[in-house]
Amino acid sequence: MKASPSMKYHWMEKTYHTSGQTDIIDLSADLQHFVRDAGLRQAQLTIMVPGSTAAITTIEYESGVLGDLQRAVERLIPRNIPYEHDQRWGDGNGYSHVRAAILGPSISIPLIDGRLILGTWQQVVCVDFDNRPRRRIVIFHMIGE
Amino acid sequence: MKASPSMKYHWMEKTYHTSGQTDIIDLSADLQHFVRDAGLRQAQLTIMVPGSTAAITTIEYESGVLGDLQRAVERLIPRNIPYEHDQRWGDGNGYSHVRAAILGPSISIPLIDGRLILGTWQQVVCVDFDNRPRRRIVIFHMIGE
Amino acid sequence: MKASPSMKYHWMEKTYHTSGQTDIIDLSADLQHFVRDAGLRQAQLTIMVPGSTAAITTIEYESGVLGDLQRAVERLIPRNIPYEHDQRWGDGNGYSHVRAAILGPSISIPLIDGRLILGTWQQVVCVDFDNRPRRRIVIFHMIGE
Repeated sequence: MKASPSMKYHWMEKTYHTSGQTDIIDLSADLQHFVRDAGLRQAQLTIMVPGSTAAITTIEYESGVLGDLQRAVERLIPRNIPYEHDQRWGDGNGYSHVRAAILGPSISIPLIDGRLILGTWQQVVCVDFDNRPRRRIVIFHMIGE
Repeated sequence: MKASPSMKYHWMEKTYHTSGQTDIIDLSADLQHFVRDAGLRQAQLTIMVPGSTAAITTIEYESGVLGDLQRAVERLIPRNIPYEHDQRWGDGNGYSHVRAAILGPSISIPLIDGRLILGTWQQVVCVDFDNRPRRRIVIFHMIGE
Repeated sequence: MKASPSMKYHWMEKTYHTSGQTDIIDLSADLQHFVRDAGLRQAQLTIMVPGSTAAITTIEYESGVLGDLQRAVERLIPRNIPYEHDQRWGDGNGYSHVRAAILGPSISIPLIDGRLILGTWQQVVCVDFDNRPRRRIVIFHMIGE
């Protein structure tokens, strides 16, 4: 444990163009960039996607397992069953909302001695569940010293 | 990035009366109140529900999609199959525990320039999975400057 | 709300030997130890498991409900269906990756007046979804004062 004379924060907003339909975007390069530029040593990071039809999680960014996640999500919360959201609003993306609520919009990761705590084959990803291509803003936020 | 002379924290405990059975409580008004009262500009917020039969997530607070989430949860982790928890303890809420463990008890959200990072139709909610009405305490917690 | 002259951080890395196959490890004792040793009063904690086949969540650590969670996970993301990850890499743990991505690798918990915000029967756990015994490192990280 160390006492620090001052707290610092750093944040970055980054736009991604997704194809929707459980498109999975690898945020690793931007995240590593963000951490390097900020130059903090000890911090907590939050990665968040505003909006109610996308989620943030981690996964090995390997096309086989990405497809496995996409198929699992389709099996668990299928596209082709009736959703009340669609009957009311005609958006056709009721399943997108349900999927996003179950996965969650953000994750937190510690930064220790300037090193982001992630496994070697573990990437931070944004999963876009919407039923159409979207322009997504992801927020990288850090507080520490 | 800015250096700050001091770190501040702020927290609020708020009680909600829920009907259980995947009752979904909109926390937005209290959350916005909390953020305004605290007056911080740069912070990380954690919203957490203590207890093992409720969860925190975000969703568009629209009755159609709330029903869609409730039906999805019922389909994925049904009430009317046997749970070992119930056979041991007779609580009848084994499904509530499993649902809560999958959704998770807390989420983190960045605050940037005094603005909470949420989508326009994205509300922070407490989902009460218990099998009976409950008095739930939700913790709003913020650290920053 | 209080202003603090300095921010402090504290972290601990702890190794657990798991049996894999949705083994659920109770982190409570180590977590309470960590909080006591750090001696902070107001903080945000992140508990994270690096790696893409394990997750962190909370549950009542009671063998009945642990089995219920294990059975639910097996029903939702079954072991014995084909996964593209396995066809490509022969790891045989495609289901482990999918399960971990859905539950998520970390959770955040507030610390208020030196007290960790958790329900009486709510334990923080690491769920190891891998298909074999693993040596898992869990990170406990705290920032506050």
